Amino acid sequence: MEQIVGIVAAVLTAIAMLPQLIKVIKEKKAQGVSFGMVLVLIAGLATWVWYGILKEDYPIIFTNIFSLLVNITLCIFGYIYRNNSDEA
Amino acid sequence: MEQIVGIVAAVLTAIAMLPQLIKVIKEKKAQGVSFGMVLVLIAGLATWVWYGILKEDYPIIFTNIFSLLVNITLCIFGYIYRNNSDEA
Repeated sequence: MEQIVGIVAAVLTAIAMLPQLIKVIKEKKAQGVSFGMVLVLIAGLATWVWYGILKEDYPIIFTNIFSLLVNITLCIFGYIYRNNSDEA
Repeated sequence: MEQIVGIVAAVLTAIAMLPQLIKVIKEKKAQGVSFGMVLVLIAGLATWVWYGILKEDYPIIFTNIFSLLVNITLCIFGYIYRNNSDEA
């Protein structure tokens, strides 16, 4: 039971940033997104990957690597669209 | 060592949404924030709290309750500022 709950939690938090990434790509705007949040999240997720490696816990490693890639992509698009705003 | 890495990871991911909450409150705008993200994150964090309770793992319980409160607050301010946009 615990393992199922843990995997559901890990998957939900791993995919949570996807709607934000899709919104930034669709609207070609990123003004409303706090890149402080994305950077702290990237640091946290990288630390979770490190933790998973130390514990050899593959669900923790893979869900956090996935989330890390989503957030790094969000950072890249945020940089690309940094000058687009509502007036554009 | 593992425990320290785990706590650092948990604290970083728990506080990650704070910069976004502060940005929404300061700018009194929430257009750029994907509330799909916030809702999926709230579901994931609630599931992590459940997982922590099942495992009686207090660091998991408290860091995720903290993050849950930050995200629920973000949802509330997002609703309050839903009509504020750049033209306002």
